[in-house]
Amino acid sequence: MVGGAEPASGTRDFLAREVRRRKAVFDTVGAVFERYGFDPLETPAFERLEVFVGKLGDEASALIFKILKRGVHEATGEADLALRYDHTVPLARVVGTYGSKLPSPYKRYTIGPVWRADRPAKGRFREFAQCDIDTVGSASPLADAEIIWAIHDGVAALGIEQFQFLINSRRALHGLLQAYSIAPELGDKVLGSLDKLDKTTPEAVSAELVDRGVSAATAESLITDVSASDTDRIRKQLDTTEHGRRGLAEVDRLLKLTAGLPAGRVVFTPRMVRGLDYYTGPIFEVIAAGYPGSIASGGRYDGLVAALGGPAVPACGGSIGLERILASQAVFDTDQRGLDVALTVLGAEADIMRLASELRALGLRTGVYLGSSSKLARQLRWANDQHARAVVIYGPEEQETGEVTVRDMASGAQTRVQLTEAATHLRSRQ
Amino acid sequence: MVGGAEPASGTRDFLAREVRRRKAVFDTVGAVFERYGFDPLETPAFERLEVFVGKLGDEASALIFKILKRGVHEATGEADLALRYDHTVPLARVVGTYGSKLPSPYKRYTIGPVWRADRPAKGRFREFAQCDIDTVGSASPLADAEIIWAIHDGVAALGIEQFQFLINSRRALHGLLQAYSIAPELGDKVLGSLDKLDKTTPEAVSAELVDRGVSAATAESLITDVSASDTDRIRKQLDTTEHGRRGLAEVDRLLKLTAGLPAGRVVFTPRMVRGLDYYTGPIFEVIAAGYPGSIASGGRYDGLVAALGGPAVPACGGSIGLERILASQAVFDTDQRGLDVALTVLGAEADIMRLASELRALGLRTGVYLGSSSKLARQLRWANDQHARAVVIYGPEEQETGEVTVRDMASGAQTRVQLTEAATHLRSRQ
Repeated sequence: MVGGAEPASGTRDFLAREVRRRKAVFDTVGAVFERYGFDPLETPAFERLEVFVGKLGDEASALIFKILKRGVHEATGEADLALRYDHTVPLARVVGTYGSKLPSPYKRYTIGPVWRADRPAKGRFREFAQCDIDTVGSASPLADAEIIWAIHDGVAALGIEQFQFLINSRRALHGLLQAYSIAPELGDKVLGSLDKLDKTTPEAVSAELVDRGVSAATAESLITDVSASDTDRIRKQLDTTEHGRRGLAEVDRLLKLTAGLPAGRVVFTPRMVRGLDYYTGPIFEVIAAGYPGSIASGGRYDGLVAALGGPAVPACGGSIGLERILASQAVFDTDQRGLDVALTVLGAEADIMRLASELRALGLRTGVYLGSSSKLARQLRWANDQHARAVVIYGPEEQETGEVTVRDMASGAQTRVQLTEAATHLRSRQ
Repeated sequence: MVGGAEPASGTRDFLAREVRRRKAVFDTVGAVFERYGFDPLETPAFERLEVFVGKLGDEASALIFKILKRGVHEATGEADLALRYDHTVPLARVVGTYGSKLPSPYKRYTIGPVWRADRPAKGRFREFAQCDIDTVGSASPLADAEIIWAIHDGVAALGIEQFQFLINSRRALHGLLQAYSIAPELGDKVLGSLDKLDKTTPEAVSAELVDRGVSAATAESLITDVSASDTDRIRKQLDTTEHGRRGLAEVDRLLKLTAGLPAGRVVFTPRMVRGLDYYTGPIFEVIAAGYPGSIASGGRYDGLVAALGGPAVPACGGSIGLERILASQAVFDTDQRGLDVALTVLGAEADIMRLASELRALGLRTGVYLGSSSKLARQLRWANDQHARAVVIYGPEEQETGEVTVRDMASGAQTRVQLTEAATHLRSRQ
């Protein structure tokens, strides 16, 4: 930044190239979701404060941007509105608001900004886009599979080639705890430790499990079994409990329903936990070569819509971490968008405006020199700065013969054409 | 609404059909601006509060949504951020922030929401889209003309056919006051009264002028002259003062530079004032058959960027009232987007998911039945609710012969095709 005020902490200005790149990414993913029959939904930037209060847990609630009451109430220092923290709470509100007027099941996607008063850091913003896809009102395993297919196609459409869905089941995880005789009250903490297996060493996880009250022998066999590339052993263990069997059946049905995806794309991953505890069925995470952490995730969360104030309906969904993907500049990199044609101005301005209009009607991105110099050299410099591919010169000499000079900016080659044929000529050069 | 919470007062949920319509309108207008060489700009939803304070006048300042400080500072009841009230203040900030890193002149467009704590009413919202196009850093009359051309093409691209640009010049208005010997201190009020000529009777305006201290004779000749369909008389009057002559020259040059537009599209309208007093040169308003008030407006505002905290640069621009245009449901009305193909599920689920994937890869919007019924009649009802054009049935009988039944939902006609050829067959039917 060269001076003047910067945008507010944790927010970004998007100039031309970045707006185009983001729009291309959002439109591409949206078009994939449309093919799956998902409908777009846009909710307001803010909701009444009570829509969020008590729905998000303490940590998240502290990150809500609250809006001061207006007018005479401003002096009270009280807030009555809040910027949306995610797209899930507004979805639950919408399901409650429109009820049976929505298609059933309600399959919707939303790609748009959310706001969180997080401490800004590299790659962590206070305004950032979230991309959510959810099916509300279906308990069918086909709905879970469809979310995975749709996210698969969305990620692939962004040009990411090497990626993998790690799948598991919350039910299988409960079975796992039973099978290894972990006391129920230790359950959440043990799963939390297992979730770290992809970030730290097995030894560190083992030490943590022992710390939490698991015997050293159990900790070791649990870690060995869930980390094994072959899932035979863990399958046998899961088969010993009712929860485990039902969880395995969920996983196997999902594997079968996604068997049409490229081989190895979807992998049963017993150690995969997903931090959020609102999941009730199958869960997944997407990892990709070159990206730290996961680039997408989701699962089934049958109780959540009701917990967020909506009706009691089964639901499943997922989200693609588009900001994380956009942070890799290679994705959908777009060239500087230059002018197709730059028109210099050396008198005969009305003719120039008319020619510009003809060129634009033909779809050419056309700029007219708007500076104060009447020197051609200065105007050509402007055209060059605009990354123009062709320049039109209509000086006194050309005006006399009713012609224009067309200059190719790459080669410097110049051609004379009739003014009346200039638009067609320039169109044919593209 | 069937129950549950509504969106916050003055805000709207946009369900599928409306999101698609709004996106089509925004993308269409954006594409026009791109052809003119304007670049997109997106600024954050909120700015530091001081970016707005003192920039907007008392009336507007009262409508700013302020965001409470976070964490321990929340208890102070103080605000430090504000939702953007318009796109102009952020533009001035951006010009200050990036300076010479921006193209020169900086031609940008922004189409996106702004927030105002206005009293909600029919057609007046607290969250609504503004569509702005501006050229910062050019004093050239070609820049003014280009804004008019671009807005012309944008409005036309939305399918609006009968519309007209009323143009005038702030300088001509000053000349007008001189020519009719209006005391300078009465100037703003007199112009304010003239601005009402399109809303009320000449008699009422005349009475108001007299009230304000203008002689009855002057009031009458002023009103008659500025309202005349023929501008000869007012041109003669303007010709008697320096301001008037320069203003007329501005108007005439703009008329010449827009002469390529359809005849009668741009009309010198001496009584047109534009409420906002930051305009310094040519001004315009667009009226259209079937729309109350104006659907677009703009002009030159050379001092504004500096007044808003940016550098001292000439600038001109305009905006299209897209919300007003969208309020006319006829604009870009889109059909309910139904499914191209609905797949029923009567077993063989993995095959169904695979076929759905093939259909989607061919670009067909494809839905799979996600409900719990195994009855075909119930599933056909679902397909009908989804406005599906074709339904695929793959029941036990079809599975035995490796075929599917394709049912045309309009005619009820059914065809049997091989499962392996179903996707191609369905594609060819579209």
